[in-house]
Amino acid sequence: MIVSSERLRLKKLESKIMTAEEAASLIEDGMTVGTSGFTPSGYPKEVPLALAKRAEKENLKINLYTGASVGDELDGALARAGVIAKRMPYQTNDSIRNSINSGKIEFVDIHLSHMPQMVRYGFLGKIDVAIIEAVAIRKDGGIVPATSVGNSPVFVQMAEKVIIELNESQPLELEGMHDIYIPKNPPYRKPIPITRTDKRIGTTYIPCDPQKIAAVVLTNRRDSVRPLAPVDETSKKISEHLIEFLENEVKHGRLPKTLLPLQSGVGNIANAVLRGLVDSPFEGLEFYSEVIQDAVFDLLDCGKMTVASGTSVTPSEEGLERFYKNIDFYRNKIILRPQEISNNPEVIRRLGVIAMNTAIEIDIYGHVNSTHIMGTKMMNGIGGSGDFIRNAYISIFATPSTAKNGAISCIVPMVSHVDHTEHDVMVVVTEQGLADLRGLSPKERAKEIIQKCAHPDYRDALMEYYKKAIDFSGSAHTPHILEEALSWHINYSKKGRMI
Amino acid sequence: MIVSSERLRLKKLESKIMTAEEAASLIEDGMTVGTSGFTPSGYPKEVPLALAKRAEKENLKINLYTGASVGDELDGALARAGVIAKRMPYQTNDSIRNSINSGKIEFVDIHLSHMPQMVRYGFLGKIDVAIIEAVAIRKDGGIVPATSVGNSPVFVQMAEKVIIELNESQPLELEGMHDIYIPKNPPYRKPIPITRTDKRIGTTYIPCDPQKIAAVVLTNRRDSVRPLAPVDETSKKISEHLIEFLENEVKHGRLPKTLLPLQSGVGNIANAVLRGLVDSPFEGLEFYSEVIQDAVFDLLDCGKMTVASGTSVTPSEEGLERFYKNIDFYRNKIILRPQEISNNPEVIRRLGVIAMNTAIEIDIYGHVNSTHIMGTKMMNGIGGSGDFIRNAYISIFATPSTAKNGAISCIVPMVSHVDHTEHDVMVVVTEQGLADLRGLSPKERAKEIIQKCAHPDYRDALMEYYKKAIDFSGSAHTPHILEEALSWHINYSKKGRMI
Repeated sequence: MIVSSERLRLKKLESKIMTAEEAASLIEDGMTVGTSGFTPSGYPKEVPLALAKRAEKENLKINLYTGASVGDELDGALARAGVIAKRMPYQTNDSIRNSINSGKIEFVDIHLSHMPQMVRYGFLGKIDVAIIEAVAIRKDGGIVPATSVGNSPVFVQMAEKVIIELNESQPLELEGMHDIYIPKNPPYRKPIPITRTDKRIGTTYIPCDPQKIAAVVLTNRRDSVRPLAPVDETSKKISEHLIEFLENEVKHGRLPKTLLPLQSGVGNIANAVLRGLVDSPFEGLEFYSEVIQDAVFDLLDCGKMTVASGTSVTPSEEGLERFYKNIDFYRNKIILRPQEISNNPEVIRRLGVIAMNTAIEIDIYGHVNSTHIMGTKMMNGIGGSGDFIRNAYISIFATPSTAKNGAISCIVPMVSHVDHTEHDVMVVVTEQGLADLRGLSPKERAKEIIQKCAHPDYRDALMEYYKKAIDFSGSAHTPHILEEALSWHINYSKKGRMI
Repeated sequence: MIVSSERLRLKKLESKIMTAEEAASLIEDGMTVGTSGFTPSGYPKEVPLALAKRAEKENLKINLYTGASVGDELDGALARAGVIAKRMPYQTNDSIRNSINSGKIEFVDIHLSHMPQMVRYGFLGKIDVAIIEAVAIRKDGGIVPATSVGNSPVFVQMAEKVIIELNESQPLELEGMHDIYIPKNPPYRKPIPITRTDKRIGTTYIPCDPQKIAAVVLTNRRDSVRPLAPVDETSKKISEHLIEFLENEVKHGRLPKTLLPLQSGVGNIANAVLRGLVDSPFEGLEFYSEVIQDAVFDLLDCGKMTVASGTSVTPSEEGLERFYKNIDFYRNKIILRPQEISNNPEVIRRLGVIAMNTAIEIDIYGHVNSTHIMGTKMMNGIGGSGDFIRNAYISIFATPSTAKNGAISCIVPMVSHVDHTEHDVMVVVTEQGLADLRGLSPKERAKEIIQKCAHPDYRDALMEYYKKAIDFSGSAHTPHILEEALSWHINYSKKGRMI
């Protein structure tokens, strides 16, 4: 491959152009590697594949830090090759999930906004090598990121060596979409000056000392984007309940007519909820979130949304085509920030973000499990949900009321793992209905959640547990019978049904 | 009583001077009342006592919102009189605790920084009456608070009527110690301009439209301060482990020599930890916390601490004498802010606060229960612990390794209630030792916590559970056996011993 001077603008770096295999040889056993990538967007592909290949012939273990989940060429290939010793902060790949749940990989499940500052504070050890996918390298060494920013700025800042995958499949027109701001460490940190969703506060590139750039690998391998399922009946109902709730908040003066900036988790339910807004009466919407999915393009296209700020563009295959085709339009509407900023409590609280995230299960008192199947097996990780819901204007958790064809109730007496506590959950919504928990005590919450959100097949059993627990505990603050609290999960493990 | 013109500076309010009974008659059945007070400091006393008396003769229920816990004249008297329907956000009083745990009072256990903005957003209903203890009322109606600020600014802002208890036992010299700043609601909120612990950003009084002031009640009843226990051996050891840890962080360049601003929970362990710093090598310390206890006076007196910012001064009886006696010295070193600011995530994260809080129990994976005895009975509430630990530079939880003369292990297989999740807990410390959990996976955390923090009497049983859970779960991400996870609590309830 020949590299254009538009992509590699610092001529002396031509001497650093090498094959993926050569670049991978800079990575030694025991090293900690920080990479770009947030969802299957903007992650390095060639060097990880070469590293996985190298591991066929030698003992090689690394700690792998990323922005969030990444594509199979990175998480999948390295997990299958047995290269990953420790992984943080998030993943969604089958191969790595299996290794995490069989004791082969130590996974640290950490808030996405905590990770970058912990790296900079020195809490997570030294970053030996950063591997960053880029659209271009500037004359000053500055790196223009691809479709995500994630933790790339802090990895570049803290790494001893930087390997760049210069990816020609990522259009040069991405330049100008990023807004890179790196906070100082305490006691020197200043207010992050974002006061509106559309405010830019940084540079369009990641500053990098050219001396640090140890390798440049040329590629045109595209992001392995994932398909989106069509909107199903359950997601549609969840979306309808939510929009009705938001309309009611506006009616009562608790939200402005344009709402406040929206955050949405990733996946089909989240996408369906956003898509529902296309047909809603709301105008002038803003998006302050992590991941920009297809439905955000819909909202921008129809003019109902004015700006979308995130740390990653993660469309479907069709969405990616559409994004590339209209990139000049989207570049004026989309801002990609480091996850330290997209997920920052300071900004989320200031802007008053409405946070919508999905749950694995929710208990009758409003505790949420976002991560663990039956209390032990890691699904994906907490991701950014904690960053957002804890600081949101309104925090909302959505889940279908049942899973596994009705064998599992997603509303349970006690969740088998807690990621979000009763203190942080304002609204619970399923296809059955919406429970508004603001200002309610645990006993009031239980009645609201059971009646509004539980599936009719489980409602009576939940109410029976609740009433029995009141008697058993003498009407204690949070009624429970510890002998029975987790029995639904135990039943499922033994009999394949919760009740 | 005759009021001096130094205390009541707006002459026309003399017509509003009335007895506590008359003022209490402004409060009607079904109303929501917001009061000053944060710990037994600066809370109204006369009107609540009059209200409790009135309830002997008539049906009277109110919702009671405060800053945090308050003195017995308010929480105790009203709980015993059966006046409280709903209570938030925190309490520590025996009478009210009993009512909460027997179904007589609905208690909403909420983060202390969330409460004020939720009031202003209209999420918690209308505030009918605010009762505020004050040192003085200014000519413009501005209220000079007493020994705490808490939620008074937002209650005054949002209440229909304001009742002021003008308390002559609170010295006029308190004026100038407060720094009142009320953030705007989104989308109009600006950065909170605190960039250093000692920075003042607001007024020395709570702005108040004089038209709103419906009653002025004169009193000289003092705060019912609580005694502090002498520092015991357990607390001393916890303090030593912590100081050793902090010294090591400085040595490795992860903390500056003057540390970063400290936050400390309330109570004897917290006070002992702070007292330990008096004999430590650290200088130039700062305190950015909620409650200013006796040990903070020690640190200010000996010159090791330069500034203390909180929302409440809560000394012992001796401490209060000392505080009053040297108030001119302390007024230059102490800043009292609204809890919306003292506990604000934005400021805590920016300053890099080192947060030290106490736990009821902690499990082998690092989840913390701060509120519930055996999973059902409310102890006090989450208070500000979540505000601080979630945004801290380093989050630390301290607990003795055992309770009830060894019958209870405070390190358990699974906590019976989760207030702080694994994602948020960096350090666990008991008198046995300190576990540094940063960057560790659940399995790594379990070994660290069991070996360093558990009491020797429970260490083997915990390790046995952990190993059995690994086998049982096929080495899943978080090994558990749901049938046994809560068995220690069940044992205690049945046999009076956890194992």
